[in-house]
Amino acid sequence: MLGTGLIGDFYTMTLHGQRGRDRVRVVYSRSEDRGAAFRGRWGIPESTTDMAAAINHPETDVVVVALPNHLHEEAVTAVARAGKAVLCTKPLGRNAHEARRMLEAVEKAGVFAGYLEDLCYTPKTLKAIKSVQGGAIGDVTWVRSRETHPGPHSAWFWDGRLTGGGAIIDLGCHCIEISRNFVGKGNRPVEVICHTDTLVHPIADEDNAIALIRFESGAIGQFEVSWTFRGGMDLRDEVAGTGGTIWINHFLRTGFEMFTAGGGSGYVAEKAETTAGWLFPVGDEVSELGYVDMFTDMFNALKEGRQPQETFYDGYVVNAIMDAAYRSAKSDRWEPVDLFEWRGGSTPRISSTPEMYEGHVVIKREILPDGRHKLILKDPASGDFVDRVVAGG
Amino acid sequence: MLGTGLIGDFYTMTLHGQRGRDRVRVVYSRSEDRGAAFRGRWGIPESTTDMAAAINHPETDVVVVALPNHLHEEAVTAVARAGKAVLCTKPLGRNAHEARRMLEAVEKAGVFAGYLEDLCYTPKTLKAIKSVQGGAIGDVTWVRSRETHPGPHSAWFWDGRLTGGGAIIDLGCHCIEISRNFVGKGNRPVEVICHTDTLVHPIADEDNAIALIRFESGAIGQFEVSWTFRGGMDLRDEVAGTGGTIWINHFLRTGFEMFTAGGGSGYVAEKAETTAGWLFPVGDEVSELGYVDMFTDMFNALKEGRQPQETFYDGYVVNAIMDAAYRSAKSDRWEPVDLFEWRGGSTPRISSTPEMYEGHVVIKREILPDGRHKLILKDPASGDFVDRVVAGG
Amino acid sequence: MLGTGLIGDFYTMTLHGQRGRDRVRVVYSRSEDRGAAFRGRWGIPESTTDMAAAINHPETDVVVVALPNHLHEEAVTAVARAGKAVLCTKPLGRNAHEARRMLEAVEKAGVFAGYLEDLCYTPKTLKAIKSVQGGAIGDVTWVRSRETHPGPHSAWFWDGRLTGGGAIIDLGCHCIEISRNFVGKGNRPVEVICHTDTLVHPIADEDNAIALIRFESGAIGQFEVSWTFRGGMDLRDEVAGTGGTIWINHFLRTGFEMFTAGGGSGYVAEKAETTAGWLFPVGDEVSELGYVDMFTDMFNALKEGRQPQETFYDGYVVNAIMDAAYRSAKSDRWEPVDLFEWRGGSTPRISSTPEMYEGHVVIKREILPDGRHKLILKDPASGDFVDRVVAGG
Amino acid sequence: MLGTGLIGDFYTMTLHGQRGRDRVRVVYSRSEDRGAAFRGRWGIPESTTDMAAAINHPETDVVVVALPNHLHEEAVTAVARAGKAVLCTKPLGRNAHEARRMLEAVEKAGVFAGYLEDLCYTPKTLKAIKSVQGGAIGDVTWVRSRETHPGPHSAWFWDGRLTGGGAIIDLGCHCIEISRNFVGKGNRPVEVICHTDTLVHPIADEDNAIALIRFESGAIGQFEVSWTFRGGMDLRDEVAGTGGTIWINHFLRTGFEMFTAGGGSGYVAEKAETTAGWLFPVGDEVSELGYVDMFTDMFNALKEGRQPQETFYDGYVVNAIMDAAYRSAKSDRWEPVDLFEWRGGSTPRISSTPEMYEGHVVIKREILPDGRHKLILKDPASGDFVDRVVAGG
Repeated sequence: MLGTGLIGDFYTMTLHGQRGRDRVRVVYSRSEDRGAAFRGRWGIPESTTDMAAAINHPETDVVVVALPNHLHEEAVTAVARAGKAVLCTKPLGRNAHEARRMLEAVEKAGVFAGYLEDLCYTPKTLKAIKSVQGGAIGDVTWVRSRETHPGPHSAWFWDGRLTGGGAIIDLGCHCIEISRNFVGKGNRPVEVICHTDTLVHPIADEDNAIALIRFESGAIGQFEVSWTFRGGMDLRDEVAGTGGTIWINHFLRTGFEMFTAGGGSGYVAEKAETTAGWLFPVGDEVSELGYVDMFTDMFNALKEGRQPQETFYDGYVVNAIMDAAYRSAKSDRWEPVDLFEWRGGSTPRISSTPEMYEGHVVIKREILPDGRHKLILKDPASGDFVDRVVAGG
Repeated sequence: MLGTGLIGDFYTMTLHGQRGRDRVRVVYSRSEDRGAAFRGRWGIPESTTDMAAAINHPETDVVVVALPNHLHEEAVTAVARAGKAVLCTKPLGRNAHEARRMLEAVEKAGVFAGYLEDLCYTPKTLKAIKSVQGGAIGDVTWVRSRETHPGPHSAWFWDGRLTGGGAIIDLGCHCIEISRNFVGKGNRPVEVICHTDTLVHPIADEDNAIALIRFESGAIGQFEVSWTFRGGMDLRDEVAGTGGTIWINHFLRTGFEMFTAGGGSGYVAEKAETTAGWLFPVGDEVSELGYVDMFTDMFNALKEGRQPQETFYDGYVVNAIMDAAYRSAKSDRWEPVDLFEWRGGSTPRISSTPEMYEGHVVIKREILPDGRHKLILKDPASGDFVDRVVAGG
Repeated sequence: MLGTGLIGDFYTMTLHGQRGRDRVRVVYSRSEDRGAAFRGRWGIPESTTDMAAAINHPETDVVVVALPNHLHEEAVTAVARAGKAVLCTKPLGRNAHEARRMLEAVEKAGVFAGYLEDLCYTPKTLKAIKSVQGGAIGDVTWVRSRETHPGPHSAWFWDGRLTGGGAIIDLGCHCIEISRNFVGKGNRPVEVICHTDTLVHPIADEDNAIALIRFESGAIGQFEVSWTFRGGMDLRDEVAGTGGTIWINHFLRTGFEMFTAGGGSGYVAEKAETTAGWLFPVGDEVSELGYVDMFTDMFNALKEGRQPQETFYDGYVVNAIMDAAYRSAKSDRWEPVDLFEWRGGSTPRISSTPEMYEGHVVIKREILPDGRHKLILKDPASGDFVDRVVAGG
Repeated sequence: MLGTGLIGDFYTMTLHGQRGRDRVRVVYSRSEDRGAAFRGRWGIPESTTDMAAAINHPETDVVVVALPNHLHEEAVTAVARAGKAVLCTKPLGRNAHEARRMLEAVEKAGVFAGYLEDLCYTPKTLKAIKSVQGGAIGDVTWVRSRETHPGPHSAWFWDGRLTGGGAIIDLGCHCIEISRNFVGKGNRPVEVICHTDTLVHPIADEDNAIALIRFESGAIGQFEVSWTFRGGMDLRDEVAGTGGTIWINHFLRTGFEMFTAGGGSGYVAEKAETTAGWLFPVGDEVSELGYVDMFTDMFNALKEGRQPQETFYDGYVVNAIMDAAYRSAKSDRWEPVDLFEWRGGSTPRISSTPEMYEGHVVIKREILPDGRHKLILKDPASGDFVDRVVAGG
């Protein structure tokens, strides 16, 4: 385990949680104190301030990179060089160039590499993706993925030089990959339009951003990210399809509601803003946020010799989309997603053959209370529209 | 009452509903049959196929225009000429040119004119706007207004020649004016970026659209409209501010949930798709959709000699924003909102003076469980960020 | 209008609200100051401290009794004597004896009398009752009606000598009549089991109560009332039927949610406990709480010479059920509902003829994913149960 | 693993799920076919139709009893005799006599015994219990636990001779133990009032039941169980305290909502009734239903030599409460909970010392918008109540 921040805690809580068979053997931290504290907190045999030592430790099979963004490339490269499996937290790189180099490093070294994109592994998301793949909502036309909260807990997140940007690089990477999972990973992201602004915090990078990603099929991935949201952490996905709709709420409205006049104490949930009044706790965060299923997929994939659901190539695509978003925010126009290589094949345009009725195109068919059908018809010749009520069935 | 479609029914149901003192005196329809049926349905003394006769009827005080979009200008102009008060349904015109001519017609004639934008008058919206104006959520940074359903009930809605467009002209007008009410009507809409597509229905106009409106303060109005949504009518508004958040759900989740195995019958709510399984009815639609409060404001404003909340100028601004959206969908870039005249004054940029701490800018202040405060600080000279834990209070 | 408390305000706000044609002509208060303040607040021509004067005022057509419970009988008797229409707030009496005398007074005088049970008139409840009557959920088996909050605002509510009891007499009357509307008013309430306790407030009467009412059909009406609930006003109804389910939430989760960090101001909703954090406002309380539809029914019924939905006889039945509840709380057993006269006819026991399959009773039929049906069968002779999978359709 | 029904599947899915280190070594089924199918389904080395062989298998460390109720005692006794650890599914016995004998068997044998009450281990419930224990809602006054669905999937559940009853024995055991966890396990259950009825299914046992359990502190545990609910599985808990409120929804409203026009396929959630329209799936059922945390607690307790959260004594208490409920349903009065031994100590009555103000008891204190406080005061001498507005703070 490289890194002892909040994400290192979440990862270790997951690995050591329930009846898990996996254990952190050695933890690396730049700070001896933080490393020792982490070691004690989680019952880990060793801590070190020497990253290479942690990586090359004979009992280290898999290296988990839970470091700030600017250290990902160095760490991943070192692990690849050591010929060990590597799992890297999100975002893969600060930009697509870094991500591509990391991708090439692991592929050249032939090591197993997993992209730790937890929000694509939440139990709700996994089940929803499976429903979509099973045809439950038809062709996906639109995915809205929203992640907003009042801002990160650690100083380095706020420094764009270390992270690669602001709210987009922190939160947008989740939303983009969620969209890709719903529209289909073979559905090429073509172009992006993005608006960013810095409205509240005295920083240079964006604290708010909204973007649309146009995929080859015509589907739109929409992300909304913010470091200025008030009320906790708003983590919602909405998916529209030609045959249905999915709404997922991961945090503030999950069927667990508590009012307290105050007086008690304790942790409510990540990024909760208040400890009295109406609160919306989350049951088991490491499960609800996808960490459990994510590590299960990673370790099983490693053992079974297959790719995990989220690969370094996926991380690279996400970085490429974020790069396009940043370019668009400056150019004020749609910007193409530049990919050095597209591995996803081709996805046809969403389409359907319109129903015909007596030489007219059926625009809509509604069932009336008396069982008859109301048709809205278009005359292909004149372009005129008419209503027609016909027998049902 | 000019027009006997669904909206004419909703308006008359409202006017004749509860213990209202207002009554429809004469109804105009292009079709004698539909006029007679409407007259019978609502107990109206007279129907006519002569619009001028309806307008000039000696007992007509106020004319309600509930006609298809392409007939608004003709009707409004005739009422202005007759020197009577006129209330016109949304959208005001098919484009800003029409809307401007209608605005000028009523202003030149000096008659009372109200823009029937019901969704700005829903009880929830009115109360939320009042909360926002009272400072409950600080400066508004973002408004998302979403109106989506499976498509309109009447043929003329689908004919862009008659309406001026597709889902934007039908539904976007609501969303835009809702955004304006939340960000403040004095907050000038500067520019618009918009994406449209026709994904499902065999029509030439857009059946899906998403747009961002940038207001002078930096606030963003985001609208999402669709004629391809599955599951009923999704009518939601979300407002983010520097000091709070508002979520409003008008239709599918209003605290009224019903499961039926089938067997019963009856109307659930406008645009409901199913009559078995889990249903989400609306209690009193004419109240929940704002019709009651809208007509109260209109008639009271007329009597008190003041402007209503929604004026023809507002309708004109909405049309101008929709025009910019359509231009943007073609040009693929931000397009300015062209207004022949801005009546709203100037709104300063959202801003705050950052808190300082020992020469550093305070980026964020969090209260720890032990009462101490964690500060994230920025050194203005180096641009470096650090964490600091200090005593609370 | 007799009475100038919170309920007098709500009633007058309703009558004078929107475009209503009804007006309060004269208001009676025991206190000259409160009467004058009320008169000013609502633009009422006259106030008086002489109840008889208010009742006999030549321009008074209808008298609304909005007084504390112990004054209902005196007021209603006086109005009946004056031969005028009377509308009396809930509960009708402090007990069934008072209620019966009031019922007999108005019936002997032959005057119109309405029982102002607003929560049976909320738009959601009206629509749900209509759905139930239309068969949407089959036979009603159970109604849970819950009204709980932190306790009333005025001193007299807490004095059981004036009111007739505690939380049951204050809130249970609503819940009971809601249950009766859902199970059918012709469905005789047979017996009641009730548990009461005084857990928080230093009073002699109950601040918490739960009861079951058994109706002739076998349906159960369950009420839960409390003056010790924390978090606002919890006003929910749940209805289970053989063919469906209804869930209604009137207050805390109605599709209107607001987070505020504080700083703004203003009224949220009746009995709201907090003004910061997550709040759940109600759009238009006088509509959502049923006042608008209630007065519409009352005045229309008076004009049309028919009974309103809620009559004095209904008020009497509610009092009789509450009397049985109080007796049960003491005796710790089911107590019969004593009615001097039952006007509702007879309701058959909920029942269905079981489906048979090859000489066995079908207990349950489930559709398997492959389209076949799984039957759970009972052998009528041996009483044994078996599973059987058969072809579907 | 003894038993191959739905619960055996859920248990094995949990044990073999994620990165768990525990494995089922041998499965017992009365049917050779079902045993073989189960073995294949879960990759278990052996299956057998000889219960003793499975128990005494040299590699069996822990025996999980997942058999129909009437076989629990026989199985548990056999495991105790074999001196192995035993985990028994709910309910422990068909009645308190059976449960007591099972309790005595394991205690005499000195073996580890765990009561598999999964719903007390759901992540939401665990976190809520911890909040309650931390004082977040003050003293618990009331717990409502509701579990209702359209009826069980297997034939034996419907045969009261095998199970010990109907919906109470199937579902009430969950609700009772949830209530005990919230009011505190040291809080003695004193007496029970219960109403049962058979309204829909052609069976002799109850398909609906409602009961109140009075605990020593005055707190009420309320359970509602039904085999006739329509709409899926309704699994909700509500907890009221003197200082707060908790609402938990485990199944139908968990932040995962899907509308499908049909066409796709697949499993939605246990007891879901429909596969089109609005559906409410559950993300990861074995986690959400508590199986994961339950087995973690059981195996960790075994290893650490401590009692698990849910013991056989708890199972015995639950049976004793259900026995009292069945007696009450017959006697129509409160029935005492008979326990051969109470291990929980004593819990004081919920109480608070009332605040005094100038010789009066303060009944309620409200903060007015202007900052002053409104007091409702009781004169201890006269018993009169008055309002008083005083300066705030």
